[in-house]
Amino acid sequence: MADTEVQERKIVVAIDEGEESIYALTWAIKNVVSQNSHDTIILLYAKPPLKVYSTLDGSGYLFSSDVMVSMEKYSKDVADCVMEKAKRVCKDLKNVKVEARIEKGDARDVICEAVEKIGADVLVMGTHGYGMIKRAFLGSVSTHCAQNVKCPVLIVKKPKSSNVDKSS
Amino acid sequence: MADTEVQERKIVVAIDEGEESIYALTWAIKNVVSQNSHDTIILLYAKPPLKVYSTLDGSGYLFSSDVMVSMEKYSKDVADCVMEKAKRVCKDLKNVKVEARIEKGDARDVICEAVEKIGADVLVMGTHGYGMIKRAFLGSVSTHCAQNVKCPVLIVKKPKSSNVDKSS
Repeated sequence: MADTEVQERKIVVAIDEGEESIYALTWAIKNVVSQNSHDTIILLYAKPPLKVYSTLDGSGYLFSSDVMVSMEKYSKDVADCVMEKAKRVCKDLKNVKVEARIEKGDARDVICEAVEKIGADVLVMGTHGYGMIKRAFLGSVSTHCAQNVKCPVLIVKKPKSSNVDKSS
Repeated sequence: MADTEVQERKIVVAIDEGEESIYALTWAIKNVVSQNSHDTIILLYAKPPLKVYSTLDGSGYLFSSDVMVSMEKYSKDVADCVMEKAKRVCKDLKNVKVEARIEKGDARDVICEAVEKIGADVLVMGTHGYGMIKRAFLGSVSTHCAQNVKCPVLIVKKPKSSNVDKSS
């Protein structure tokens, strides 16, 4: 950091199942987070809403409540697993607070709303680096967020050959 | 920085006439550049190519060489002025090398090519934050670069009420 003053920044890192987001977190810890700060890292995970299929849409079956409970549990397990992995990356940080935040909804909405609500100083995101065609159809969470949040956005693309462990 | 090792990063900051890019530079110096590093900041300015009107396109006039020389000079003066302003923002940095680089061409191409050629560790950009309509037509230099460069990209949006001097 250029200043000697102690900084207290809220650094939101969007986490998902992909290793791209773990790479982004690792990069941010190395390049942006200051050990001498009172920075807070907020690990943010958007739990996708469960899609409920009904007989009306032609798929021909309705999930029983048992199946729904299993799916809900699976979704929670994934969220916990992703968060655990992200927290392990942060484990050696001193002075830096680490918070985990899991919210349900579409990643774009969850991230934009959380950044606003938290009053984040910076948003860190990985990117899947889809090709042009896939990007045109799917859009990109990182592009959407970069255009819609008010704070600075750091988009970290994982190099194809890189190894997360090496870069940490 | 999380590590105590001395870093030698190449931080490319795209500079243009708008104060958004000066804000982005200021933010990056405060939040990313390390005084204890051997970081190099590369200030990159893309000088737009002069548009030459010919009688063939129906505009009805051809610029004389005098006018062309004046325009070329004006364009150079703008580039020098922008660079001077950016260098002033960096003037108190110790240990950090600051390089200026002016290249001719469309900003998107210039930035993507320079980042690749330099082997930048991170690209910092301001953004004009166009509204949805303007963005759809004009596209956004920052979005284009975020999607096309391989290194991490930091997009800094200038808050509407912020004052560059205050944040430095």
